[in-house]
Amino acid sequence: MKVGVLFSGGKDSALAAILLSHFAQIELVTVSFGIVPNDAASVACVLGFPHVMIGLEAALATATVDMMVEDGYPNRGITHLHKTALERAAERYPVVADGTRRDDKAPLLNTREVRSLEDRSAIDYVRPLLGYGRKAIDALADAHLQVTYGECVAFDYEVELRGVMARSYGSEAVKVVFPPNHIQSRVTGRKSVIF
Amino acid sequence: MKVGVLFSGGKDSALAAILLSHFAQIELVTVSFGIVPNDAASVACVLGFPHVMIGLEAALATATVDMMVEDGYPNRGITHLHKTALERAAERYPVVADGTRRDDKAPLLNTREVRSLEDRSAIDYVRPLLGYGRKAIDALADAHLQVTYGECVAFDYEVELRGVMARSYGSEAVKVVFPPNHIQSRVTGRKSVIF
Repeated sequence: MKVGVLFSGGKDSALAAILLSHFAQIELVTVSFGIVPNDAASVACVLGFPHVMIGLEAALATATVDMMVEDGYPNRGITHLHKTALERAAERYPVVADGTRRDDKAPLLNTREVRSLEDRSAIDYVRPLLGYGRKAIDALADAHLQVTYGECVAFDYEVELRGVMARSYGSEAVKVVFPPNHIQSRVTGRKSVIF
Repeated sequence: MKVGVLFSGGKDSALAAILLSHFAQIELVTVSFGIVPNDAASVACVLGFPHVMIGLEAALATATVDMMVEDGYPNRGITHLHKTALERAAERYPVVADGTRRDDKAPLLNTREVRSLEDRSAIDYVRPLLGYGRKAIDALADAHLQVTYGECVAFDYEVELRGVMARSYGSEAVKVVFPPNHIQSRVTGRKSVIF
C-alpha cells in the first residue's frame, strides 16, 4: 500500500506518517504556494521518508484569504485549503492520509466531505490520529520525535497566507483572523522507540 | 505506555492492538459473562500478546437484552455493553483502546461519551482504527492477519446475549433483534508484514 501523507513539517503529520509506515510505503507531500521558502523536505529527510512538493496556484491563496477575512476567523479557509491539498494528493496516490486528530477544529472534514473525497477521487482517505486525544498524541510524540514549538514556524503555509492577506487587506486583518498565540510544532529529530 | 485493548478475537480489535504495539505495551482484554466457553485467549496467543479476561455480571446481560428487545434492534444495547467494558478496563489501565472504526454504527461512542469516559476514569481512550474506512481496513487486515469469517463465531459475547435473550423472550425475539446475515471475523494467524 503506497500512501501520500500531507506533511507540514509539524508533529501531527510526522506522527501520522510514522504510524502508517509500519505497514505502508510512505511518501510525504507538502503543498506550497511557493511564496515563502519551505524546508519541509529537510524535516522529511530527518524522518527518513521520501518527500515531494506540490505547488498550489496563487488564485487559491487569494480565495482562501478572502474566505478567512469574510469570516474573521481562519477555520473555514484552512479546511477549504486542506480539502484542495487532499484532492491534489489524490491525483497521485491510491491512499491519501493526514495528521488530523480527534480534538482538531480545523482542518477537519466531516463524514459527508470524507465520503465525497473518496468517491470523487476513487481513493482511500486515512486519518491515523483521528482516534487519539491530546494526551495520547503527546505520549506518541514523546516516544517518537524531537520537537520544538514556536509561533508560526517558517515553512507552514500559514506564513504564506498571512503575507497574501497583509498585502490585500492590511496587517490589521491578519491580527483579527489569526489568533496571537497560535503555537505550532516543528519536528527536529526522530527518536528510537523504547517501551 | 501500557494499553488495555478490548479484544473479541475478531479482525478489528486484533488490528487495533497491532497498530498500537509499535509504540505501546499491549494487553488484550476480553469481557465475558462466563456463559459460553471463550477462546479469545488462544487467539491472543497466536497474535503474541498477553491476555486477560474480565467477567461481567449476569444483571448486565439481562439489562442489555431488555434494551435490545425494547428497541427491536441491537445497537443501543451493544454500545451500552461496550461502554461498560471500557469502564471495567479503565479500572486497570491508564490507556484503554478498542477496534471501533470510522464506518461502525455500533458500538460507537459519540464525542460527549468519549469525554465523559476519559474524565470520569482519568484515562486516555484511544481508537487506532477510527480514521480508517472499510477498504483501508481490509488492506491492513490482508497485510497482517489470517482471518476466517462466519456467522456469530463462538467466542463473541453476542452468543451469550442470544442465549440470555432466548431464555427470557423466546427464540423469535432473537431473530427479530439480530439480523440473519451478521458475519463476524475470527483471527486464525498473524502474517509477517511485506511491503
